Amino acid sequence: MYLEKITSPADIKGYDAAERKALAQEMRDAMLKRASIHGGHFGPDFGAVEAIIALHTVFDSPKDKIVYDVSHQSYPHKMLTGRVEAYIVESQYDEVSGYTNPKESPHDFFNVGHTSTSISLATGLAKARDLAGRKENIIAFIGDGSMSGGEALEGLNTAGAMNSNLIVVFNDNDQSIAENHGGMYRAFKELRETNGTSPNNLFRAMGLGYRYVADGNDAEALIAAFSEVKDTEKPVVVHIATQKGKGYKFAEENREAWHYCGPFDIATGKAKHTGSDPYAKASVEFVLKTAKENPNFVYLTAGTMGGIGLSPSKRAELGSQYVDVGIAEEQAVAMASGLAKGGARPIFGTYSTFFQRVYDQVAQDVAVNNNPAVFLLVGASMFYMNDVTHLGFFDIAIFANIPNLVFLAPASLAEYKAVLAWSVAQTAHPVMIRMPVGGYEESPYAVRTDYSDLNKYEVVTEGADVAIIGAGNFASLASESAAELAKEGIRATVVNPIFLSGLDTALLDALKEKHRLILTLEDGIIEGGFGQKIASYYGTDEGLRVRNYGLSKEFHDRYDAAELAREHHLTAEQIAADTLILLKK
Amino acid sequence: MYLEKITSPADIKGYDAAERKALAQEMRDAMLKRASIHGGHFGPDFGAVEAIIALHTVFDSPKDKIVYDVSHQSYPHKMLTGRVEAYIVESQYDEVSGYTNPKESPHDFFNVGHTSTSISLATGLAKARDLAGRKENIIAFIGDGSMSGGEALEGLNTAGAMNSNLIVVFNDNDQSIAENHGGMYRAFKELRETNGTSPNNLFRAMGLGYRYVADGNDAEALIAAFSEVKDTEKPVVVHIATQKGKGYKFAEENREAWHYCGPFDIATGKAKHTGSDPYAKASVEFVLKTAKENPNFVYLTAGTMGGIGLSPSKRAELGSQYVDVGIAEEQAVAMASGLAKGGARPIFGTYSTFFQRVYDQVAQDVAVNNNPAVFLLVGASMFYMNDVTHLGFFDIAIFANIPNLVFLAPASLAEYKAVLAWSVAQTAHPVMIRMPVGGYEESPYAVRTDYSDLNKYEVVTEGADVAIIGAGNFASLASESAAELAKEGIRATVVNPIFLSGLDTALLDALKEKHRLILTLEDGIIEGGFGQKIASYYGTDEGLRVRNYGLSKEFHDRYDAAELAREHHLTAEQIAADTLILLKK
Repeated sequence: MYLEKITSPADIKGYDAAERKALAQEMRDAMLKRASIHGGHFGPDFGAVEAIIALHTVFDSPKDKIVYDVSHQSYPHKMLTGRVEAYIVESQYDEVSGYTNPKESPHDFFNVGHTSTSISLATGLAKARDLAGRKENIIAFIGDGSMSGGEALEGLNTAGAMNSNLIVVFNDNDQSIAENHGGMYRAFKELRETNGTSPNNLFRAMGLGYRYVADGNDAEALIAAFSEVKDTEKPVVVHIATQKGKGYKFAEENREAWHYCGPFDIATGKAKHTGSDPYAKASVEFVLKTAKENPNFVYLTAGTMGGIGLSPSKRAELGSQYVDVGIAEEQAVAMASGLAKGGARPIFGTYSTFFQRVYDQVAQDVAVNNNPAVFLLVGASMFYMNDVTHLGFFDIAIFANIPNLVFLAPASLAEYKAVLAWSVAQTAHPVMIRMPVGGYEESPYAVRTDYSDLNKYEVVTEGADVAIIGAGNFASLASESAAELAKEGIRATVVNPIFLSGLDTALLDALKEKHRLILTLEDGIIEGGFGQKIASYYGTDEGLRVRNYGLSKEFHDRYDAAELAREHHLTAEQIAADTLILLKK
Repeated sequence: MYLEKITSPADIKGYDAAERKALAQEMRDAMLKRASIHGGHFGPDFGAVEAIIALHTVFDSPKDKIVYDVSHQSYPHKMLTGRVEAYIVESQYDEVSGYTNPKESPHDFFNVGHTSTSISLATGLAKARDLAGRKENIIAFIGDGSMSGGEALEGLNTAGAMNSNLIVVFNDNDQSIAENHGGMYRAFKELRETNGTSPNNLFRAMGLGYRYVADGNDAEALIAAFSEVKDTEKPVVVHIATQKGKGYKFAEENREAWHYCGPFDIATGKAKHTGSDPYAKASVEFVLKTAKENPNFVYLTAGTMGGIGLSPSKRAELGSQYVDVGIAEEQAVAMASGLAKGGARPIFGTYSTFFQRVYDQVAQDVAVNNNPAVFLLVGASMFYMNDVTHLGFFDIAIFANIPNLVFLAPASLAEYKAVLAWSVAQTAHPVMIRMPVGGYEESPYAVRTDYSDLNKYEVVTEGADVAIIGAGNFASLASESAAELAKEGIRATVVNPIFLSGLDTALLDALKEKHRLILTLEDGIIEGGFGQKIASYYGTDEGLRVRNYGLSKEFHDRYDAAELAREHHLTAEQIAADTLILLKK
């Protein structure tokens, strides 16, 4: 065994080719076992083993600095930089995160989880080095899927003008999460097919040097190439063609399915747990049905299969009514605006955490123009992804404050379906919809079919003294809290606002009559969010108090969601207890 | 005179070459006179006259659709599409905006003011056309300065994969607002120098067809080129080399100074009004001084001379401590994070309206990593640019809700200088600073030198009953309101929070003792802003009321700022009158 003895990259520098080959196999074996039990990113890591061994053989980390794009391919890096136990000792699997993390190791320079940032971050490290007069290699390691993102392309442009050391390792496995989309991918294919000699070369057109390694899973060829560019005084791209998922048959054969995995059986590749999200399922059904009914309907994605898990067969069924722009959210939003302006009915869907990338496009390209594009926020909840780079609880504060944009948070499956149908039928407003996470299993009231009467909230239960306004995923928490209060003889009013971008002032005014206390609950940060609008509205009313529930403005990493909820009093019992105290005051 | 007879593009279609030449001259004459009296964008419009005449000769607008990037070069387009009076009748100069505007004309498709959006918007129009089965030409008209923006590059990538009509007119005058920066500009230069034959071709590398027009100010050559690509069934770039500011000697000679102009004397080119912003002046002085003292200090800009008007000579003085990444704000922010991580002390400055483009980069690349980069928001005020695409009053709601980021709004020149100095001296936090607009002429208190005691507000005046918390630019409005109240015998407490990203809970708790009413004033929208945090904090306090002052969540276009302020009760008299009523209640 080589792997268990590795405490730092220095340990592998003396290896010969046979030893490197054995090490690579051990790394894959360890990752396979870990993935089968723990889950995690798969294809990106299996494809990058030799490249990362070669990098740590040639360069001197952490003096030389490697920045991984997305950093979902950094497992081999972590194994070689003092964290091998987390990959070979089952009880320690959870001791590292799925991304690079400076708190774990001096070999990690950034917390990274969003795509297309590595080259830009690397230009900063390189410039800092130059200002300080140091000598060291700065390396950005970036996959082909990430290359379509604007930040990466901006980074290339700046890199191309630097008269200084900067090495971009372009890890081209001819696959994003799903297949790649965009004109650059035809040119990359030409480069692969011509051993790097095709004239259509994005990197040279951006001013960088270029070299090609045909077998990016051959550690020896990589070591030769990296040795040649080491200490370069000009920015250079090393384009390496790798096999995503290399070394595990099922992952090699189905690269999309094995980008990321949950626990599975190694022999068969079968997942141990399967589940289906009713909201994603309903979304897919809605998209397919609407596409059939309306030839001008189109579903847009930015590399994430719409966030709703559109399978290859469903995508084929959608045909030209499905557009994947690659990982390029800005393009998706602006294109949606153009589509809406041109008379089409577009929905662009992706995860809440990636929507953060398009504030300006939603505001300028869409909202200023009031073009009726529809945006679907997936995983917008504290009960979804819990990596610090993938949090889904900032979107209300970001988007519900943009003028003209109608921001809807449906509270049940029935309401979600109704809101979706209305959003593409109407052409008066741009609409953003929070696809529920959790929420009411069944709607406690008959849902509307028409939401064009903006900012009209729904009274779920009529009560007195205290009114609980529970938004979206937390509408059900409002009802549960009311049920707790009922045990104490208090009949609370429960309100589902649906609209988080505006106030139902008629209802809010009416609530003043019989209520002394208003609670707001939202599945997001309090600051800048929905509840603070209510607090502000009632600010000058004497005798009416407001308490905002939600998360505090903090980043959390790999948190326990139930625990975080308790810390923020986001349980029905705590809310009821708080209410009793407040009502007695 | 041809110009005054033009009511639509149909009127010029029968022109011969001599008539087009005469028309172009008339257009430049009209624009020159208008610019000398009214001001506006100059160089971009003077350079694009022939291209726009050629477009409207060859294509059939509005069936064929032209999308202008930034749309600051659309004056000639407006002249040819029914709005000529706004350019030849002085009393009507203000009847058109400085950008394309669908409310003005069916020949305009989008309100556009930020760069790099035209190709993406055009892909949407093209796709909508294809879904509907229509035939029409979709044209994006984009300058070289805009091409460095990620959204434009994402758009090219999507365009390159479309099997459909899409024409990108690449208007290359070899100049952004200032000089271009980035590796792509070397390749564009090669293309110009080789009559379009150099192999390093960004557009071909993105999968688009390409043709080159050496003299982009020759209407006849342009008409020939456009006629050839008309009705193309593949995406194609027409690269035209133009002269920025063509036809006015001073503008041809100093392209940076004549990108935009105020009123001037035509004979001498001398500006009629000159003024200097004390904050910009102080910023430049600070930057130059700090660069001398600290070799690791670096000032970053994204094509806008730092937002503080760094002149060519000052930029030369900064040397390698000045980095212009081109119009590529995402790159600037991520690079700043890398710089900070690498031990440098970066400030990235640009206008508030352009900072909107980097929510995700500030959140992910910087704040999650807690890297101590400094961001300078310029023009963050309702009293700054008033075009709907350039509003500066959303930034508090966008950025002050990001964890870890310290958001500071200094209230006077002295405080601004102190905050700047502290921000680059410390390395504990990422910091965003609102460069004041207006504000106290002199600080009414001794300013701190150390702001590391986060969220510590400053009590400007001790009073009772009512406390006025005036943020940043509106700190002085708080004092003025207090002065109005003093006339009525009410001595108000005045507080300058400085920190808009957190609450001084000790002070807020202390205020409860002697106050019944808290007012918050901010130069931004109320929703998601600073004041709502205060309203939320006091939400459960009985007997203490809060009123939030600021703008409502709306877009405004070319508004009268004083009038907008009155509509929102943002004058000392109105605030005092409101307070008297509230205190009597």
